[in-house]
Amino acid sequence: MKKLLGTSFLLLSMAVFGQAKEDSIQFSQISLEILNNGKGYTELKDLTKNIGHRLSGSAAYEKSVQWAAQKLRDAGADKVWLQEVMIPVWERGKESLHIQTSNGKWKSLKMLSLGNSEGTGGKDVSGEIIMVKSLEEYDQLPAEKVKGKIVFFNHPFNQGYVQTFLGYRDAGVYRRTAASLTAKKGGKFAIIRSLSSAFDDVPHTGAMKYDDDVPKVPAVAIGNTTADELEKLLNNQKVTAKLNSNCGMKGEKLSHSVIGEITGKKDKSVIVVGGHLDSWDVGEGAHDDGAGIVQSIEVLRTFKKLGIKNNHTIRVVCFANEENGLKGGLQYGKTVKESNEKHLFAIESDAGGFSPRGISLEMNEPQRNQIISWGNLFLPYGVYNFEGRYSGADIYPLRDMGVPTAELVPDPQRYFDIHHTEEDTFEKVNRRELLLGAAVMTQLIYMIDKNW
Amino acid sequence: MKKLLGTSFLLLSMAVFGQAKEDSIQFSQISLEILNNGKGYTELKDLTKNIGHRLSGSAAYEKSVQWAAQKLRDAGADKVWLQEVMIPVWERGKESLHIQTSNGKWKSLKMLSLGNSEGTGGKDVSGEIIMVKSLEEYDQLPAEKVKGKIVFFNHPFNQGYVQTFLGYRDAGVYRRTAASLTAKKGGKFAIIRSLSSAFDDVPHTGAMKYDDDVPKVPAVAIGNTTADELEKLLNNQKVTAKLNSNCGMKGEKLSHSVIGEITGKKDKSVIVVGGHLDSWDVGEGAHDDGAGIVQSIEVLRTFKKLGIKNNHTIRVVCFANEENGLKGGLQYGKTVKESNEKHLFAIESDAGGFSPRGISLEMNEPQRNQIISWGNLFLPYGVYNFEGRYSGADIYPLRDMGVPTAELVPDPQRYFDIHHTEEDTFEKVNRRELLLGAAVMTQLIYMIDKNW
Repeated sequence: MKKLLGTSFLLLSMAVFGQAKEDSIQFSQISLEILNNGKGYTELKDLTKNIGHRLSGSAAYEKSVQWAAQKLRDAGADKVWLQEVMIPVWERGKESLHIQTSNGKWKSLKMLSLGNSEGTGGKDVSGEIIMVKSLEEYDQLPAEKVKGKIVFFNHPFNQGYVQTFLGYRDAGVYRRTAASLTAKKGGKFAIIRSLSSAFDDVPHTGAMKYDDDVPKVPAVAIGNTTADELEKLLNNQKVTAKLNSNCGMKGEKLSHSVIGEITGKKDKSVIVVGGHLDSWDVGEGAHDDGAGIVQSIEVLRTFKKLGIKNNHTIRVVCFANEENGLKGGLQYGKTVKESNEKHLFAIESDAGGFSPRGISLEMNEPQRNQIISWGNLFLPYGVYNFEGRYSGADIYPLRDMGVPTAELVPDPQRYFDIHHTEEDTFEKVNRRELLLGAAVMTQLIYMIDKNW
Repeated sequence: MKKLLGTSFLLLSMAVFGQAKEDSIQFSQISLEILNNGKGYTELKDLTKNIGHRLSGSAAYEKSVQWAAQKLRDAGADKVWLQEVMIPVWERGKESLHIQTSNGKWKSLKMLSLGNSEGTGGKDVSGEIIMVKSLEEYDQLPAEKVKGKIVFFNHPFNQGYVQTFLGYRDAGVYRRTAASLTAKKGGKFAIIRSLSSAFDDVPHTGAMKYDDDVPKVPAVAIGNTTADELEKLLNNQKVTAKLNSNCGMKGEKLSHSVIGEITGKKDKSVIVVGGHLDSWDVGEGAHDDGAGIVQSIEVLRTFKKLGIKNNHTIRVVCFANEENGLKGGLQYGKTVKESNEKHLFAIESDAGGFSPRGISLEMNEPQRNQIISWGNLFLPYGVYNFEGRYSGADIYPLRDMGVPTAELVPDPQRYFDIHHTEEDTFEKVNRRELLLGAAVMTQLIYMIDKNW
């Protein structure tokens, strides 16, 4: 019995060892293929330089829909289609912010209206600026002190976090709520210090949201050094601000997410890999989220190129409208619910095209533990961190239906220097970092496809 | 007895736990101080923009010596001094490389002479180019096929490695040996494809070496896309190259490494942290190795700022002449040997100012294992990789004397895009990535100082 047990154990060990070795070889082939021959970087150049930024509802977004469909066909998808999505249309138009100090002169400040914000309808709106550093400080201000004023929410991005997403989370509440908080006490509009880790004057846009019961006053962002200068002025004198902007919601429009897949050889259960195709209307949407799009297409191309037989259907979804409505993700989830199409797993890449460090897992413990047990396979590719328990916003609807979801976790140090700005350009993306992220997603999907 | 053992174990656990907690708090304070208040990034801007590149023997290098001494005093060093070093002087001068194809026209190629290479003495040297892809291929060429020719060593940087330093290692032999290999078979000069991971026309310089027994023919580097174009031409036609250059060794000169320290409270055993102050004569020497210099100074500043009582002397060494002679490191080691000054540990940062991922350890197993046992403390700072068994080149002499040595291991994906080029500028360095590297070195030195 003892000997038999020993033999069984040996055979089992050999099988497991053989398995791990086979997987390790496949991981290496995937990485070699992508680092040597990956097309993601040149595709990202094409997307960012020939189409550029592509806010939902814009002509550029519609161009990117055709572009993504073509790239999926080029990558070898068996089937490519557009999924109809009704999206909100927000337009920026012209905008300017000026301040006047005690010397009477007006000075222009570099700024961006926040996404989804209403503007001033092309008229000047002005008033005295009052500054607060925190929500707590604002809560204590009596309404009469805010009435007719401009509120400057001067909350700094916390540089002390190693995980910059925590700084973004903390400061995010200011971007989302500043306008309605201002309106509730009768203020005319809100200025926020950007959610930015950079020491520069670049303003960061991003989605805000109005409460139902208050007037829709404008909200704008200024960069960190601009905010520093304004803070200094306000510590010494009265400052008047004047905003003139044309932005606002312009109804809804029919648009599309783009989907391509390679059909499963064993069954039609679906593994989703995706990013969002839309971007904000500044810069080039290179890291956010052109990177996620080209990485996802690279996954599909690599399966085809290496001739890996996928048991299940591997589907790339290029989601519409993540930035200011999440309508692409919602529509995709709704369609899955209605069709009752079985989804095994979904992963999104939407945290920038930087060197991968981990995979965040939002699923039950046995599933988590199984993926974590593959950790040694990922280590040579720089992936060691499986601590996160969140996933990409576009796949929340899948998560809420019980699908195990995940997100690629790249190095976070540089993201909030350029996130939602004119600085999010192709030049900020490194070829090897981008491709290594695609390799890691391909490796994970290879394991999921094989073992689930 | 059992109970007693239980109690002892409990007390021991509490002590160990208390210890780990205390260390964890100290790690956090170090990281917060550096990410919030670190001066390394602005100091790097000052060094790169106001002094710029600083090859050993140049006036700029001498300026950087004064600069580093002042920064060490500003950081709170108890003692700052210059260590005399005799350094080789190499100067580039004017240089140009042209090729002539079958249409008879001459075309200029973007190039850099390799460091330490002799030039053509300002005269045109020309000949037909022959191309080889590998040393093996070159070895098989009879001398008569090389005689009077220009040899183009067209060995590509291997993009397939995740660890780019392996690609650098493999291709490095071409940079070091191309000139003497060419001379041995009677060739006039050598052209190498740069040791570069970038798909651009930027040439990478770097040290080469002459064998004693052969003529010192010139060696130059061209960028990857230039090499691609040249390869394409050579596949179809005869191509002549013409080099004109003034570079060469200009004897020796007295120069200095810069040293600053905070004296140990318990004893005078020394912990070294350093980088090299010199750079190549193109770009700004920002990642290589301005980053290592400002990170090392940040370590000292942080000990002083946080009032951490160092048991042993913590010494920052800004080594002279790493790039083309290693004389600073050699002189430092010689001085230590002569004085018999006890050295506990030495770490160098010389792999770029990118996000830290690990610490490479070159020491005996018990020492290694002790540092690895601290791994959980480092994990929140993105440091998980203790696999490496090498250390910085400037501290090899210390290693050879039995001192435990180490090197900071940053993310390697971007380094060889810009290494030894005009592109190694301040703009390529990210503030948070640079400072996080300084934090990790400070944390490690805190642990070594406390436990060794």
